[in-house]
Amino acid sequence: RIDGARLWDSLMEMAKIGGTERGGCRRLTLTDVDKQGRELFARWCEEAGLALAVDDMGNMFARRPGEDDSVAPVMMGSHLDTQPTGGKFDGVLGVLGALEVVRSLNDLKIKTKRPIEIANWTNEEGSRYAPAMVSSGVFAGAYTKDFAYNLTDAEGLKFGDELERIGFKGSEPVGQRPIHAFFELHIEQGPILEDEAIDVGIVTHGQGQRWFEVTLTGFESHAGSTPMPRRKDALLGAARVVELVNGLGLAHPPLAMATCGMLNPYPNSRNVIPGQVFLTCEFRHPDASVLDAMDHALREGIARIAKEIGLEVDLKKVFDYPPVPFDASCIAAVRRGAEKFCYSHRDIVSGAGHDACYISRVAPTSMIFTPCVDGVSHNELEDIKPEWATAGTQVLMHAVLEKAEI
Amino acid sequence: RIDGARLWDSLMEMAKIGGTERGGCRRLTLTDVDKQGRELFARWCEEAGLALAVDDMGNMFARRPGEDDSVAPVMMGSHLDTQPTGGKFDGVLGVLGALEVVRSLNDLKIKTKRPIEIANWTNEEGSRYAPAMVSSGVFAGAYTKDFAYNLTDAEGLKFGDELERIGFKGSEPVGQRPIHAFFELHIEQGPILEDEAIDVGIVTHGQGQRWFEVTLTGFESHAGSTPMPRRKDALLGAARVVELVNGLGLAHPPLAMATCGMLNPYPNSRNVIPGQVFLTCEFRHPDASVLDAMDHALREGIARIAKEIGLEVDLKKVFDYPPVPFDASCIAAVRRGAEKFCYSHRDIVSGAGHDACYISRVAPTSMIFTPCVDGVSHNELEDIKPEWATAGTQVLMHAVLEKAEI
Ligand SMILES: NC(=O)NCCC(=O)O
Ligand SMILES: NC(=O)NCCC(=O)O
Repeated sequence: RIDGARLWDSLMEMAKIGGTERGGCRRLTLTDVDKQGRELFARWCEEAGLALAVDDMGNMFARRPGEDDSVAPVMMGSHLDTQPTGGKFDGVLGVLGALEVVRSLNDLKIKTKRPIEIANWTNEEGSRYAPAMVSSGVFAGAYTKDFAYNLTDAEGLKFGDELERIGFKGSEPVGQRPIHAFFELHIEQGPILEDEAIDVGIVTHGQGQRWFEVTLTGFESHAGSTPMPRRKDALLGAARVVELVNGLGLAHPPLAMATCGMLNPYPNSRNVIPGQVFLTCEFRHPDASVLDAMDHALREGIARIAKEIGLEVDLKKVFDYPPVPFDASCIAAVRRGAEKFCYSHRDIVSGAGHDACYISRVAPTSMIFTPCVDGVSHNELEDIKPEWATAGTQVLMHAVLEKAEI
Repeated sequence: RIDGARLWDSLMEMAKIGGTERGGCRRLTLTDVDKQGRELFARWCEEAGLALAVDDMGNMFARRPGEDDSVAPVMMGSHLDTQPTGGKFDGVLGVLGALEVVRSLNDLKIKTKRPIEIANWTNEEGSRYAPAMVSSGVFAGAYTKDFAYNLTDAEGLKFGDELERIGFKGSEPVGQRPIHAFFELHIEQGPILEDEAIDVGIVTHGQGQRWFEVTLTGFESHAGSTPMPRRKDALLGAARVVELVNGLGLAHPPLAMATCGMLNPYPNSRNVIPGQVFLTCEFRHPDASVLDAMDHALREGIARIAKEIGLEVDLKKVFDYPPVPFDASCIAAVRRGAEKFCYSHRDIVSGAGHDACYISRVAPTSMIFTPCVDGVSHNELEDIKPEWATAGTQVLMHAVLEKAEI
């Protein structure tokens, strides 16, 4: 049995790093607070007797040796970075839940045949640097390391430079670490489990995603003396794109999601007709053919809007992520864990992307979801109950032990 | 006759301060570059033998004594601050044109009965601090000094503190300076004069304006796992407001203008449904009753949009500015100037707000417009021809001499 109180204490301790007034967390990837969070995690791993390695994407791996240390380890983990106005649990539960599993194995003096490893993947959130999950993506061969190093944030700072600056560009070449099986514990980030009063979600799939960056260029001019018919208002175009994207989400109910999350007008001055707007949009659906249809309709719609107003369009797809079926034997191990401890459970599809989705390309993988209050995530008010965290971690321990062979 | 080449040289010299790569100017009010621009202007005034005074709103007055120095002066001027991506002429032409008038009077050893003064008004643009023309507004009693001092920019810096920081909070109490007549030379910032190949615009009115700040509050949540019907997307609401505002401009052709210039979503992260958006909008029309109708329709429309999506609305009117008729005798003096030098001319209404519009509340006032290329302003590409600057300044000199009594 894991120690739920110790797990909760660690979650609260980690939440202080980058903690916000409204009770959330702002621990953006590769910032000074991310560095502090990593250092705290490293200290805890050391105290638990684990050996730490860092690869050249900043991914951290803490290892508990197996009785046979030459075989591939069972790995569990998630991420410690957060959204700009994120919560205390998104990602963190998966890392510190994994740590709690190891601490409990230590307490109980349980030995496993296979080594066990805890992973903290760099830049899962994708907010400071898009795409999301880029470092588990490089690990799994979805992107090159160079591609990731050259990503820039809104200030023009490069991923590679920031990784070096915070001292977490490790020496181990990314992606060369064998994995026998991978498990990720995560909050659901949606309302289903809580609505149905279910303890544990057995994640069978991750849905597909497409992310886009759109730049609309019109012409800056004076808001008080440029007649309406002479305008090329890039913000008016952007407004129509936001409406278009929302409509595409509604057009494929109930599973499609469509969102514009970021929008920056230029020069963003009260009495200037905006000459340029940068905006992002993203689509999600478990079925790739629906994503194809949305992608197509987006391009067609933006071209029409641009023509109406006289704008130029630059559209880039920055993230194209097919739906992911998880591994049957990993899913079964999770289900047996839930049954063993008599937790209510159901199968569920992940709405969010997760590092597990990339790792599933190189190792048998599955995920465990816990409910979260009102389905709220990517919000400082994100919340879970301690007993949910305990249940999810207990099931994680079971699945890991099954694969690691006691 | 004024010296058009000297005027042009001064315009180009001033444009270096805050000059941008694309050939424009970024000299936002009360910044370090604004301070540099003010210092250069002060030096030129001193070299022209003028006495400089600064009031406690940072308005600068450079005085050429009259034969009878006890009577109220004729004043001319405009502003040296610019938009974030502004041009070289908006405002600057009116200040340096005025300086050229004085330099020419000195060269020609012309004495006037009344003193002549050049004014540089603080924060005309209203971009860093709204409302626009706030310091000529305080001068004319439209706002209190305290109101202006407490305005904050996007970083939360206060107007009063920034004024003090750049060393231009003068000792003279604002608004106590008598003015016999005021003239402002300005670029049209619209396409009419150039389209009709006219040298000089005789400005008879300034149109009315209403500026608003709107904050829409919904609920931040995860873009990948929040079902479409459960969303309270503040950016979707903002997009509908942008469309609404544009529609209100189109609904009152051909004179109405309606613009959303600034829009800031929060937290502005790619995979977060925006929980809050701040945006500005403004309406302009020469007829107050049309502005009333637009104002009313805006409030009604936003309430409807908010209800559709489940948003909260905070709407503030930050600037309410009635249409301004200029002084008949000042308009006549400008017209006689244009006729005397055989410039083609026409009457015109100002689309933009100007310091002259406030000063007209406390002194007989009018304006002179010069054409600008393609009607483009509030844009780094803003441009005029040297001969246009010369013509406008020549007419300014005539009007000022008429009122100052040779
Ligand atoms: N789990 C999570 O929020 N990941 C960020 C990537 C996404 O938006 O799905
Ligand atoms: N002249 C000018 O651009 N003034 C700024 C205020 C306005 O937007 O009208």
